[in-house]
Amino acid sequence: MDDVPARADDKPLLQTLKGQSADRLPIWLMRQAGRYLPEYREVRGKAKNFIDFCFRPDLAAEATLQPLRRFDLDAAIVFSDILVVPLALGQKVWFEEGKGPRLEAIEKADDLAKLSADELEPRLAAVYETLEAVAAELPAGRALIGFAGAPWTLASYMIEGQTSRDFARLKRFAYGQPEAFERLLALLVEAVARHLVAQVRAGAEAVQIFDSWAGVLPQPELKAWSLAPMAEIARRLRAACPGIPVIAFPRGAGLTYGAFAEEGAFDALGLDTTLPRGWAAERLQPKTVVQGNLDPVKLLVGGSALTRGVDEILEALGPQRLVFNLGHGVLPETPPEHVADLVARVRGTAS
Amino acid sequence: MDDVPARADDKPLLQTLKGQSADRLPIWLMRQAGRYLPEYREVRGKAKNFIDFCFRPDLAAEATLQPLRRFDLDAAIVFSDILVVPLALGQKVWFEEGKGPRLEAIEKADDLAKLSADELEPRLAAVYETLEAVAAELPAGRALIGFAGAPWTLASYMIEGQTSRDFARLKRFAYGQPEAFERLLALLVEAVARHLVAQVRAGAEAVQIFDSWAGVLPQPELKAWSLAPMAEIARRLRAACPGIPVIAFPRGAGLTYGAFAEEGAFDALGLDTTLPRGWAAERLQPKTVVQGNLDPVKLLVGGSALTRGVDEILEALGPQRLVFNLGHGVLPETPPEHVADLVARVRGTAS
Repeated sequence: MDDVPARADDKPLLQTLKGQSADRLPIWLMRQAGRYLPEYREVRGKAKNFIDFCFRPDLAAEATLQPLRRFDLDAAIVFSDILVVPLALGQKVWFEEGKGPRLEAIEKADDLAKLSADELEPRLAAVYETLEAVAAELPAGRALIGFAGAPWTLASYMIEGQTSRDFARLKRFAYGQPEAFERLLALLVEAVARHLVAQVRAGAEAVQIFDSWAGVLPQPELKAWSLAPMAEIARRLRAACPGIPVIAFPRGAGLTYGAFAEEGAFDALGLDTTLPRGWAAERLQPKTVVQGNLDPVKLLVGGSALTRGVDEILEALGPQRLVFNLGHGVLPETPPEHVADLVARVRGTAS
Repeated sequence: MDDVPARADDKPLLQTLKGQSADRLPIWLMRQAGRYLPEYREVRGKAKNFIDFCFRPDLAAEATLQPLRRFDLDAAIVFSDILVVPLALGQKVWFEEGKGPRLEAIEKADDLAKLSADELEPRLAAVYETLEAVAAELPAGRALIGFAGAPWTLASYMIEGQTSRDFARLKRFAYGQPEAFERLLALLVEAVARHLVAQVRAGAEAVQIFDSWAGVLPQPELKAWSLAPMAEIARRLRAACPGIPVIAFPRGAGLTYGAFAEEGAFDALGLDTTLPRGWAAERLQPKTVVQGNLDPVKLLVGGSALTRGVDEILEALGPQRLVFNLGHGVLPETPPEHVADLVARVRGTAS
C-alpha cells in the first residue's frame, strides 16, 4: 500500500480511473510493447525463448518502456504473460515458435493435486523486479500498469493445453466435473490476487485483469466463472492495497458487461471491439469508467478508417470517464507510424 | 412458390415460424447430420472428398435424412456447405482433411473480376436435386430447411482463404477498400438470394442464413455488412417466394440482435450459445420467433448438465415462439444417445 505513490493525482490515467476529472484524456494500448516495433524484435532476440524473455527483468523492462519512448502514451504496462501464473503453480508451460503457448494439459480432477500456490511469489520474483526497474525509469505523468489473466481464461489454457476454437475440452471439464472445476477456480483466485498484490508492491499503480475468453460462456456460467472470480480478486487486492484501481476486461461478455458494471468491484471496464458504444455510454458509463475500444485492424489499416474509428469513440464515450485503448491487442503487422497518428488524433493535434 | 406445400400448417416448425400456435415445440439441431453419427461416417466414406460429397445428391440426401430416422426431430436441413456459393461464383475451394476449408484467396479488388454469378444455378444443380430427393422421402409433419451462408461470412472465407482467428485480412480489405468490398457484398447478396430461391423451388419450406462470423464486427459495420445484406436477401427471397419463413443466425451479434429483431425482415432469429435468454425473452421474442441456444458442449457432456441446460431454455423462452436448437453445431464427439435424451427432455417424456 505504501507503494501506491502520493503523486498519483498528477497522472491522467490514475485521475480518470479514480473518477476524477483528468488533465487530458488518457491513452494506452493493449500489447503496445510488441512485435510491431523493430526495437522490440531486437530485444526479444536477446532471450533464449519467450518464457526466458518474460523472466529477464533487464529485457522485459526495456520492452515495457520502448513504446513510451516513441509515443505520447499515458501508461506503461509491464511486459509479461498471463501464463506465468500456471507456471508458478507448477504446470509445464512452453511456447512453440509461431504456434503460441503449449501447456501440459490438466485432464482429470486428480491432476489438480500437482498444482500449488506455495511458491508463487518467489517463482515470479523476476516479474516484480521488472516492475521495480520500470518504476525507477518511468517518465513523469505516466502510470505503470500490472496485470494478470482471469481465472476462467487461465483455466482455458490449463485444461485445453493451448488456444482453442470451441473450448470443448475446457467446457467439458467445467460442466462435467463442476466441483473439481470450482476448486481450480478457487486456486486461481488465490494465485491471481497474490500476484497482483505483489505487482502493486513492486510499483504497479493500477492493474488490469484479462478475461480474454469470457465470450464463450452462456450467461449463468459467465457470471459464476468469469465475473464472480474477478470480483473476488478485486476485493482481495483492494483489502491489501487500498485505493488501487482495477480494470476488468471480460472480452466478448456482450450484454453481461452490464452485470460487471453493476457488481461495483471494478474501477473500469475494458470494452472489446464489438461492444456497441451507444449502449456502453448509456448503461455502463454512469456506473464505471470505460476503456477501449478501437478495432486493432483500423489501426493496422490507418488513414480514414483509423481517424473515423477514433472520432466515433471520442464522440460516443469521451471526453470524461474514458481511457482510450484498442478493443484487443495491437496486431504484429501494424505500422508504428499509425500508432503515432492515433495518439495525435486522440490528442486533437492531427489534421 | 408453388413448391411451398399447402400442408405447411401441419408441420410444427412451420407453424411456429409463421407465428401460429404449434402442435408441439419444434426442435432441430444445427449440424444434426454429421460426424457424430456412425451412419454418416459410412456414407461420407463413399465420396472422394467433402466437395464431392456435397455434390452427390444420392449421398447428400441420405445424410440429410439419417438424423430423422434416429431422432424425433421436426426438420431436416439439407446436407450441403456454405462454400458451394463461392465455388459456383468461380472461386477455387477445397477441403484439407482435418484442417477445414481452403480457398484461393481474394487479395485485391481486381480479383473480384474473376467472379460471376452467371452460372450459379446450373453449377449448384446437385444441391437442388438433393432437396428434391429429400422432399420426396420426408416423413409426415417434418419440414425441410434450405440454407446459405451470409455475405459477410462468405466474404471472410473468400478473402482469408480459410478460417481465421482475428480476421485481420478480411477487415483490412473491408476497411481499406470499402468500395471493392461493397461490390463483393452486392455480388454475394445476388448469389445467395438466387441460391435460396432455387432451394425453395426444389422443396425447401424454410431457410436459414448463417452469419457465423457476425460477432467479430464493431456495431456500425455489423449493421452495414451483416444485417443489411441479410435483410436484402430475405426481401428478394420473399418477393420470389411469398410466405417462405426466413431464419437469420447472426452468431455473436450480442446487443445487435436487437437491431435484427427490429429490422422486421426475418421470421426468426437463431440465438448463439452466449446470448442471455432473459434479455432475448424481453427484447427479441415480442418482435420475432427465437431459435436456440443450448451450448453444444452440454449436449456432449450429457447428464445433469444437459437436462439443466434444456430446462433453463424452456423456462426462459418456451413454450411459444421458440424453436429448440443448439447455439452452435453438434460437436463431432457427441454421443448420439445424448441427442435422444435431449429430444426426450424437450418432449417432456424424460424422467
